Amino acid sequence: MLIIFKAEHTEDEVEKVRERVLAAGCEAHIVRGLYRVTINVLGDDSKLDPEEFKSYNGVVDVIAVMNPYQLVSRDFHKDDTEIRVKDVVFGPGHFVIMAGPCAVESEEQTLRIARAVRKAGANVLRGGAYKPRSSPYNFQGMGDEGLKILKRASVETGMPIITEALDSRSLEQVYKYADIIQIGTRNMQNFSLLKEVGKLDKPVLLKRGMSATIDEWLMAAEYVMAGGNTKILLCERGIRSFDSRHTRNVVDLSAVPVVKALSHLPVVIDPSHGTGRRDSVSPMSLASVAVGASAVLIDVHDDAQRALCDGAQAITPVDFEQIVSGIRKVASALDKKIEAPR
Amino acid sequence: MLIIFKAEHTEDEVEKVRERVLAAGCEAHIVRGLYRVTINVLGDDSKLDPEEFKSYNGVVDVIAVMNPYQLVSRDFHKDDTEIRVKDVVFGPGHFVIMAGPCAVESEEQTLRIARAVRKAGANVLRGGAYKPRSSPYNFQGMGDEGLKILKRASVETGMPIITEALDSRSLEQVYKYADIIQIGTRNMQNFSLLKEVGKLDKPVLLKRGMSATIDEWLMAAEYVMAGGNTKILLCERGIRSFDSRHTRNVVDLSAVPVVKALSHLPVVIDPSHGTGRRDSVSPMSLASVAVGASAVLIDVHDDAQRALCDGAQAITPVDFEQIVSGIRKVASALDKKIEAPR
Amino acid sequence: MLIIFKAEHTEDEVEKVRERVLAAGCEAHIVRGLYRVTINVLGDDSKLDPEEFKSYNGVVDVIAVMNPYQLVSRDFHKDDTEIRVKDVVFGPGHFVIMAGPCAVESEEQTLRIARAVRKAGANVLRGGAYKPRSSPYNFQGMGDEGLKILKRASVETGMPIITEALDSRSLEQVYKYADIIQIGTRNMQNFSLLKEVGKLDKPVLLKRGMSATIDEWLMAAEYVMAGGNTKILLCERGIRSFDSRHTRNVVDLSAVPVVKALSHLPVVIDPSHGTGRRDSVSPMSLASVAVGASAVLIDVHDDAQRALCDGAQAITPVDFEQIVSGIRKVASALDKKIEAPR
Amino acid sequence: MLIIFKAEHTEDEVEKVRERVLAAGCEAHIVRGLYRVTINVLGDDSKLDPEEFKSYNGVVDVIAVMNPYQLVSRDFHKDDTEIRVKDVVFGPGHFVIMAGPCAVESEEQTLRIARAVRKAGANVLRGGAYKPRSSPYNFQGMGDEGLKILKRASVETGMPIITEALDSRSLEQVYKYADIIQIGTRNMQNFSLLKEVGKLDKPVLLKRGMSATIDEWLMAAEYVMAGGNTKILLCERGIRSFDSRHTRNVVDLSAVPVVKALSHLPVVIDPSHGTGRRDSVSPMSLASVAVGASAVLIDVHDDAQRALCDGAQAITPVDFEQIVSGIRKVASALDKKIEAPR
Repeated sequence: MLIIFKAEHTEDEVEKVRERVLAAGCEAHIVRGLYRVTINVLGDDSKLDPEEFKSYNGVVDVIAVMNPYQLVSRDFHKDDTEIRVKDVVFGPGHFVIMAGPCAVESEEQTLRIARAVRKAGANVLRGGAYKPRSSPYNFQGMGDEGLKILKRASVETGMPIITEALDSRSLEQVYKYADIIQIGTRNMQNFSLLKEVGKLDKPVLLKRGMSATIDEWLMAAEYVMAGGNTKILLCERGIRSFDSRHTRNVVDLSAVPVVKALSHLPVVIDPSHGTGRRDSVSPMSLASVAVGASAVLIDVHDDAQRALCDGAQAITPVDFEQIVSGIRKVASALDKKIEAPR
Repeated sequence: MLIIFKAEHTEDEVEKVRERVLAAGCEAHIVRGLYRVTINVLGDDSKLDPEEFKSYNGVVDVIAVMNPYQLVSRDFHKDDTEIRVKDVVFGPGHFVIMAGPCAVESEEQTLRIARAVRKAGANVLRGGAYKPRSSPYNFQGMGDEGLKILKRASVETGMPIITEALDSRSLEQVYKYADIIQIGTRNMQNFSLLKEVGKLDKPVLLKRGMSATIDEWLMAAEYVMAGGNTKILLCERGIRSFDSRHTRNVVDLSAVPVVKALSHLPVVIDPSHGTGRRDSVSPMSLASVAVGASAVLIDVHDDAQRALCDGAQAITPVDFEQIVSGIRKVASALDKKIEAPR
Repeated sequence: MLIIFKAEHTEDEVEKVRERVLAAGCEAHIVRGLYRVTINVLGDDSKLDPEEFKSYNGVVDVIAVMNPYQLVSRDFHKDDTEIRVKDVVFGPGHFVIMAGPCAVESEEQTLRIARAVRKAGANVLRGGAYKPRSSPYNFQGMGDEGLKILKRASVETGMPIITEALDSRSLEQVYKYADIIQIGTRNMQNFSLLKEVGKLDKPVLLKRGMSATIDEWLMAAEYVMAGGNTKILLCERGIRSFDSRHTRNVVDLSAVPVVKALSHLPVVIDPSHGTGRRDSVSPMSLASVAVGASAVLIDVHDDAQRALCDGAQAITPVDFEQIVSGIRKVASALDKKIEAPR
Repeated sequence: MLIIFKAEHTEDEVEKVRERVLAAGCEAHIVRGLYRVTINVLGDDSKLDPEEFKSYNGVVDVIAVMNPYQLVSRDFHKDDTEIRVKDVVFGPGHFVIMAGPCAVESEEQTLRIARAVRKAGANVLRGGAYKPRSSPYNFQGMGDEGLKILKRASVETGMPIITEALDSRSLEQVYKYADIIQIGTRNMQNFSLLKEVGKLDKPVLLKRGMSATIDEWLMAAEYVMAGGNTKILLCERGIRSFDSRHTRNVVDLSAVPVVKALSHLPVVIDPSHGTGRRDSVSPMSLASVAVGASAVLIDVHDDAQRALCDGAQAITPVDFEQIVSGIRKVASALDKKIEAPR
């Protein structure tokens, strides 16, 4: 940590800061420059909050030298983390295709789509039983009944399930049925929920908040990992930008190499919710492989015009087959393995 | 709702959309322009989701003519809503000053600050017992014990309390002690929590999400109101922008006249968390009065350098007195009444 | 400047950086922490580009301790700059009202509006002769003829003129007629133009780029000042945000105290272009006074429905009178002087 | 165009709008809904400015049904535009690699890098002679001398040149030497400059403004095309977001399919300036091919630590070879042709 003092400060103000640093068990290295006095804080400053020092008189700025996360940081865990879910591997040299309906709407619909995506080459079945909707008047999901339907589809097709938990109550149910627990973008900083999934032994897919910085996203993962759960998939699903006329979000593919430099965790892309546009799903899926992501999460619906949720971005099983074929070409060109469905 | 078709579409595609509109009990008025065919949807289209139509073949865009909210909308409730909490009035012609420590740290600290802000002219006591913190390693609040301390400070000073609930469990406790329940920026789209406070009979202060559009913010309020709770204070607390070097956020004061045009609910400003800078609290508080807000929410700490939370933005009781004096001058120039503490 | 090395670096890499720092005439103070080695650069590092060091092997980050500007910085010029244009004073204790049509459309229109705003209490006449328009098919301004009309309106009403220059050619003309030269938001980083106005002896109003950080804005002013022109008005005119449904921009009033802490230059607000909404001009103007700005810039049109440019935000002379009256009340409550028109 | 009236409006207000629409030679189709009256404007409304109608009394919103551009729009030009520069083809089925130093620093440096990138497989030589720098104290480019050096490198290596023009004066020189004229991100809305390049007969690479919406970007291209120059390459080079700690910008790859749906022009990606990070150039280059871009623009420097400009993002010739090899693998997997250097 670097603590920077105003041009006009008193020795007393510097001394107060120095004492606080020492009291925390760190060293305070005072450096006097031409225009600015600074204190370099040495030692393990992970328990010191930079914000605290901004409140000291005489201090103009405080800069963290280290990133605020440890468990998720590559600084303390050099090798890429590999996460296995049944036969499916998230990690270096592999690429995973997760697909299914945005929302579970009926047993028939779910089974039909599950069979279709499996046939086309999906490895994991996605589907929402509990849906966070921005309007209270929209379809909120089938709930527990939806989870049971997903389970049946999983048993039949052999694909593990990923589905979202919204709160304590739904988490309890989701834990029973799901193979991967999804935490949605609006809950990325729902710290109560993060603490709860941190205590579980199933993989968690943590979506990036719509306007979360990379550090905030990794701190959210740190919450989960601090609870003991180390199986975390980081999922980029589109961030807010100043342009909302033609797209819902900007899918931040440039975050992939950045996050991979900072953390050892696998990164997943959701091109469906990320773009909100059916015609963008294919190019963004191919780009996800090329940029180094570990997986994609794709909405598929065989009757998008009757979908109860996010039909605008859902692609048909036929288009999905094309996308899988494109993904395989790019993956193969870059020596990545895609687990064939059994 | 206006449904716009691609230049290249078929009559069949138009017909399918028309049928869906009719099936929802609306009229479909087809208009054929030089370059585009459109359908104007007539009647009560509030149950139709514009996203649904984007999934129809041939459709290029769907535009909502009406705003998606009804209960919170001025279209359906012309007069400003006035919310009374004991002697304090949030509404036209009034201005309310809420102040106190960011976090309750001890009984002594809380009582001392409560007395100081009351003496200076605060009307409502703010203070956090449950704290949402972006790092799992930071102070998470005193919990239930903190609520009891706030209650004692409230009884002694006569000020009603505003404090934050984070989840179902803390909400149960907060409901027992607080006069106003705060929902934080990170929970603005925690729909489970919104549904719960919607069933309660105490006022809710709903902070705007860090990157929430005005429509999303009002839809979150609609969630609360749809549950039956009509006492909602909308609180702007700073939004994300591309500049984070000198400020934490941009406080969107220009949202105040916009929200007041769209909704009948009172708008509150949080200049402390909004700016994250002690020297910005005073000018932004005065500007809040001038722009037409109904209240401010200010962090005050008598030993900011030892504050366990957000010290950088906390002002001293002495500075707070100056701010209250400035607020009173501007309020008086604009004929707004400030309830004197009894 | 603080140069931070990766956990894994070599002594050789540190040495190379040290040599480069010494070669620039600065000292390199090496600090070895628990997890990170850093170099504090001491001395006048204003000629060193932090970006340069990011290209050195072994370096993970470089942090500027000083701001990149000097001439515009309060660090090197403590007192507020006061800028006088005829009788009008931009600076502490004063508040200036600049008003007029967005675009000069005819002599009659301009004179009529000029008389009206002067009567209502404006101090400076604004009006565009050269207009930057985002569509090539929209009205591009009357050009030199417009400047002559403005001059006649200025002579008759006694108000100095502010008008925009777009490029070298229009600058030459604008310089002949205007009292204040406006550089628009799209030209904030048109460095050729900044260098040219830097050589002139008339005040420059420099609008903030739509997505310019505060540092970039001040660096643009530094460009002007480095040329020798010290009379700069900084104008906030609305920044890009993620919400564009109800407003064109977010007017960043919270930038005012921040800029005033960093720089000695006066800050002006443009609530008309900033919000793009007629009903927001009044509340944002009052808030501009309260937050500590030195002036506002307001679009007025007596037939907004026939305005050739930005009619949506133009207010009528009658509404303008109301706004001036409100501004005077707030200014008077806060002891600011408004020059009465002679 | 759809003009929406307030719930409370008068017949007179509707009539005034109707008259204005008719006066512009369009039809006004009035539709009376349950809550809102709207006017659908029929006919060629391209000369009507939606902003104008927002200024009419009684109007609450105006929505453009058509995009504001015509010449660059796919609506009026179905087939992809192909742009040839000597042997190099920008267009469907091709992929172009442009590379070279950020700034021309000396003849020796430029020739050395030009030879290296040509050998590695680049098709076009990039290099800046005039540099737009955010600080007046940084290296501003070698100017005309730099252009001559580029020319010599082009003659020797056979690669055409792309280089930036900043203003009228530099444009005159750039036009003499360059094969492709680059307009930088800060000049995307420098309308004077756009008009000038619109009159020239050489291809223009138009970088997207840092916070330009896709519509604004296409409107800037429309400016160029309205002047008669139809050879436009659209270049995405990173947009502003709320996170600036780990990256300079977000490279908006998701804009590629969107722009390709709206326009017939080729899209180019600049992963170097876009990310500002050396380790992101390779993954983002591969992703550019996969997402459907027509070219990349890459900074290469053989002594990045001594580069006078943007060294942090420059890669070495050795790394560049690796990137070209990766690009070729992905391009080949997706059946795209890369012109081999002769």
